[in-house]
Amino acid sequence: MTGKLYGVGLGPGDPDLMTLRSVKLIAAAEVVAYPALAGGASFARSIAAEHIPATAHEIVMDVPMTVERGPAQAAYDAGAAKIAAQLEQGRDVVVLCEGDPFFYGSFMYLFARLSNRFECEVVPGVTSVTACAARARMPLAARNERVTILPGPLPEAELRLRIEGAESVAIMKVGRHLAKIRNVISDLGLLAQATYIERASLPQEVVVPLKDAPENAPYFSMILLTKGADPWL
Amino acid sequence: MTGKLYGVGLGPGDPDLMTLRSVKLIAAAEVVAYPALAGGASFARSIAAEHIPATAHEIVMDVPMTVERGPAQAAYDAGAAKIAAQLEQGRDVVVLCEGDPFFYGSFMYLFARLSNRFECEVVPGVTSVTACAARARMPLAARNERVTILPGPLPEAELRLRIEGAESVAIMKVGRHLAKIRNVISDLGLLAQATYIERASLPQEVVVPLKDAPENAPYFSMILLTKGADPWL
Ligand SMILES: C[S@@+](CC[C@H](N)C(=O)[O-])C[C@H]1O[C@@H](n2cnc3c(N)ncnc32)[C@H](O)[C@@H]1O
Ligand SMILES: C[S@@+](CC[C@H](N)C(=O)[O-])C[C@H]1O[C@@H](n2cnc3c(N)ncnc32)[C@H](O)[C@@H]1O
Repeated sequence: MTGKLYGVGLGPGDPDLMTLRSVKLIAAAEVVAYPALAGGASFARSIAAEHIPATAHEIVMDVPMTVERGPAQAAYDAGAAKIAAQLEQGRDVVVLCEGDPFFYGSFMYLFARLSNRFECEVVPGVTSVTACAARARMPLAARNERVTILPGPLPEAELRLRIEGAESVAIMKVGRHLAKIRNVISDLGLLAQATYIERASLPQEVVVPLKDAPENAPYFSMILLTKGADPWL
Repeated sequence: MTGKLYGVGLGPGDPDLMTLRSVKLIAAAEVVAYPALAGGASFARSIAAEHIPATAHEIVMDVPMTVERGPAQAAYDAGAAKIAAQLEQGRDVVVLCEGDPFFYGSFMYLFARLSNRFECEVVPGVTSVTACAARARMPLAARNERVTILPGPLPEAELRLRIEGAESVAIMKVGRHLAKIRNVISDLGLLAQATYIERASLPQEVVVPLKDAPENAPYFSMILLTKGADPWL
């Protein structure tokens, strides 16, 4: 009997935004695995920390953040091999995933490598998009409104086009793309409707109008834009 | 001292997909409020049921599902007035919201009516979009991929246009719009990449290829479409 692979969403950062199911799975885990970005501490592990049993075996995947895909692919290959070895010995493996595993989550790379060989269950989590909306007090969409989620590294023309096609837009992975994104939103005359959110739900959280956003945005930042004319009354 | 208003996301249906924070707030609630659609039982209440104190005062908002907005607006006006009366007496009110409160959630109508007069906190929840993706085993997006969320009642031409502009698309509120949506997806040559999901995470869950979807879809159904060419390897 081989073990079962769990991809477990942990929410945006506040440990209280973990689901009951994720807490139960982590608290009972024999093996946990998680990514650590570019040699840093693992954000995913820090969210789940208080529930990880002291006896659990931990598999760390050190994922380099390079533009070329090769180095990250090699890291996921190596991580998948370690996880597979545990599963083959009949042990379940709980992979810790910031936010939701299937929403820009690195678990997708493990799922692609392992889900055809092992039983696998994905436990959804609160995404950073709705967590940022809650903290920024910005309702996203109701009725027939459209929501679009865009990665900040997309080219300017593409961002402009897609922003125009939805009442609400979330732009992920802001980081060093902040100035470009702000220009696009400003050109569209939408600067007053945009909010910059950094580390939503964590003690270091920042929520400011986009016009007041810092020049250097960290990786864990997002821009929300809502242009719904609907006052929801 | 007036009370505080909480809009609490409960996730897609499985009570285990509630967050720790939502459970704590509900378990300590003096007053809970929730919508019930068109005279039926409240789905939100059923998710939270085992955590609601027997002593809690319950405010039910009976929301008619009509095309005109007037009747629903009157129901939210009446609900907001009852909630305001409790808040004015210094009692906190926990509003139960299926999924996430700010993502096509009726809490937005209460937020619009009450958040300028009372302290208000929104607790995000797992949305039906990532819950459906988990159950359908469909990773949504990674890297520079775009995600668009569209309500099924939108006109055919609009659906077509927006489906073309994203790697992954979630179509909400399918119901009687199923045939129209399926035609659009089929015309775009994307039928094989689309999945129909009904009541994700509940015992009555249905997950089938869109081509095999029932003619009459219930309200709690969604279509997911992923055309990402990225194998995530
Ligand atoms: C690799 S993606 C992971 C997304 C995650 N799986 C989710 O469901 O939200 C990383 C991006 O998510 C966003 N993000 C994640 N957590 C965040 C937070 N607490 N506050 C603001 N943005 C966050 C940022 O845009 C960041 O660049
Ligand atoms: C008024 S919206 C509420 C959305 C909710 N606030 C959320 O965050 O997912 C209702 C729509 O959500 C979708 N939905 C909600 N729960 C679902 C479930 N368990 N399975 C499939 N679709 C669901 C359906 O498309 C339904 O028409």
